[in-house]
Amino acid sequence: MPVKRAMLEVVRHVESIVDGLSEKQINTMIEAIENAERIFMMGAGRSGMASRAFAMRLVQLGLTAYVIGESVTPAMTEKDLLIAVSGSGETKSIVSAAKIAKGVGSKVLAVTSYPRSRLGRIANIRVEIKGRTKIDIEKDHLKHQIIGTHSTFTPLGTLFEDTVMIFFDGIIAKLMSDLKKDEREMRNRHATLE
Amino acid sequence: MPVKRAMLEVVRHVESIVDGLSEKQINTMIEAIENAERIFMMGAGRSGMASRAFAMRLVQLGLTAYVIGESVTPAMTEKDLLIAVSGSGETKSIVSAAKIAKGVGSKVLAVTSYPRSRLGRIANIRVEIKGRTKIDIEKDHLKHQIIGTHSTFTPLGTLFEDTVMIFFDGIIAKLMSDLKKDEREMRNRHATLE
Amino acid sequence: MPVKRAMLEVVRHVESIVDGLSEKQINTMIEAIENAERIFMMGAGRSGMASRAFAMRLVQLGLTAYVIGESVTPAMTEKDLLIAVSGSGETKSIVSAAKIAKGVGSKVLAVTSYPRSRLGRIANIRVEIKGRTKIDIEKDHLKHQIIGTHSTFTPLGTLFEDTVMIFFDGIIAKLMSDLKKDEREMRNRHATLE
Amino acid sequence: MPVKRAMLEVVRHVESIVDGLSEKQINTMIEAIENAERIFMMGAGRSGMASRAFAMRLVQLGLTAYVIGESVTPAMTEKDLLIAVSGSGETKSIVSAAKIAKGVGSKVLAVTSYPRSRLGRIANIRVEIKGRTKIDIEKDHLKHQIIGTHSTFTPLGTLFEDTVMIFFDGIIAKLMSDLKKDEREMRNRHATLE
Repeated sequence: MPVKRAMLEVVRHVESIVDGLSEKQINTMIEAIENAERIFMMGAGRSGMASRAFAMRLVQLGLTAYVIGESVTPAMTEKDLLIAVSGSGETKSIVSAAKIAKGVGSKVLAVTSYPRSRLGRIANIRVEIKGRTKIDIEKDHLKHQIIGTHSTFTPLGTLFEDTVMIFFDGIIAKLMSDLKKDEREMRNRHATLE
Repeated sequence: MPVKRAMLEVVRHVESIVDGLSEKQINTMIEAIENAERIFMMGAGRSGMASRAFAMRLVQLGLTAYVIGESVTPAMTEKDLLIAVSGSGETKSIVSAAKIAKGVGSKVLAVTSYPRSRLGRIANIRVEIKGRTKIDIEKDHLKHQIIGTHSTFTPLGTLFEDTVMIFFDGIIAKLMSDLKKDEREMRNRHATLE
Repeated sequence: MPVKRAMLEVVRHVESIVDGLSEKQINTMIEAIENAERIFMMGAGRSGMASRAFAMRLVQLGLTAYVIGESVTPAMTEKDLLIAVSGSGETKSIVSAAKIAKGVGSKVLAVTSYPRSRLGRIANIRVEIKGRTKIDIEKDHLKHQIIGTHSTFTPLGTLFEDTVMIFFDGIIAKLMSDLKKDEREMRNRHATLE
Repeated sequence: MPVKRAMLEVVRHVESIVDGLSEKQINTMIEAIENAERIFMMGAGRSGMASRAFAMRLVQLGLTAYVIGESVTPAMTEKDLLIAVSGSGETKSIVSAAKIAKGVGSKVLAVTSYPRSRLGRIANIRVEIKGRTKIDIEKDHLKHQIIGTHSTFTPLGTLFEDTVMIFFDGIIAKLMSDLKKDEREMRNRHATLE
């Protein structure tokens, strides 16, 4: 598949799901971030990359954010918010960590395609981001075997991960307005050394 | 700015630049990846996240990829390709590393908004991805002071980084066709533990 | 406690356990590394740091090594060796990952103070490294409350982690002899960019 | 070389340098840490691992610490302390970052075997930790060619890195006394999820 066509396929997917995003879920997420003492981000693989990219911007906004697995991440308390990202909502390490975080009283927010997944059920707050996830993939493969359709060129969690990345950037835009921060101020908080 | 509007702004940006991407640059990049013995990815901050997300997929395609700064990254040789990602093309650590890589004979490919930047000039291959970079930002801030336009809600390198993420996914789609890999095979190469 | 006295306390600890190390366990570990197609390292927190430092040297020896959690880590197979480092042998994420690795047929080697821990029982091979671990700490705290002894200044897993670091460097020395590699060759394989 | 003999070689090295450590340098370092608003750690390769292990403990002591290169590391100010670790004191990326940090007014502390190196000269504070570094290695190789001595089995920066790890644990012991923190409290600050 040509590069440009695949790019437009991703763009169409993101576009198509924006409208369906729940305003209520978005507002609850914004509120949870603004009320948390500290925000902890967690995601495996490429979802982890989107989580870290978001954490960087939160820090530039002057909020206190950490990424699970990095060296300086402290103990969580009941004033903290854990944002756990998993397309399927069944990633083992994520589910198990979300359970522990909830156990110490932290609020858990799940960003997932499956609000009824194990992660979704543990979470206090759920934000549903549609994407073609590993579960869809199994269905697609089955269908492929039966009726011979072509398989995808945006493999595995690609659509979910790219949508989450852009969704997080949308959240940043809203936080910038709410917190009255502008780009210049964020730039001043940008890591000196990278 | 509302979350959905900001998301659509990102989507529009990506869409708008797809058409302008140089087919020649894309083909040279695909060829360089297919001919390299190993591919080394490098980027600072959020560009680094896009670089790592790309490296993960390359590994799932059965290629040998490394990320500069991770523990197991070996010495580079003249058979290797370094893909360096920097919006401005002026990120100090990236420019300096690109110079060293070229010194040991590796091929250097720059993904940047500024092909004439220091990184662009060092590179053997340049892929231009338009985005609003730190240099544009200075101009915007200046304009903002003079004519009072609103400043952006997709701050700093956001547009470049999101576009690069999707561009890399386009490259993966093309590599999948070329190498005749399907999703099922990639899934089998997906990290067992994450 | 003065810095130098604490340093000597660590040194004494390492010295004191060297003699008790099982030659049989060491030889089994060396053999497992030399026979593995690829070596995967895993450890949480500071044990993770020792694991990565070891992975770097394995790569410099010309072996193929990966660290769980880094971007380029591929799927494991039955030809691979997972070295899991956990003082207590009860670190949840490590135990759960060891189980998965064993499930796909990889060999699992546990480096732990507690060979009868959950990790120890899952592992095919156990290397016992004595250290004051989280379990000892509970006992020490109890004793402290009862008889008022002073608590430690090498807190938590410090003694275990420092001993493991030096133990791994001992393994590297042996591999250098066995594989007839010298420092000069390792240096040539040292990461070009870091 | 047998594993145990190599381990004892490392132990002897650490032991032999403890006495020579400058009390004045140690005290200046302790003071700088206690007076800094935030501590930023930086090191390449295995020195980076020791730096991160130290950062973890600083956080457990209730101090604010960051590691250069991790996602949540903010901009540095003139109230911050950068601890840069480099055996040779000539690691390019470290030297260049130290220069930038000093430029923004942060205090720079170099942990190095060569106080007169480029890093040492940039730093406000120098702590000299003897180790066999890359520079010694060149001399050793030369000698080896001339008089045929055996080359080392603790290759490259091993002795420096292991000594620094234990030195940092000595600093932690001192900070624990000074700040009247005990292990129990540190454990409560230990990362909930890892």
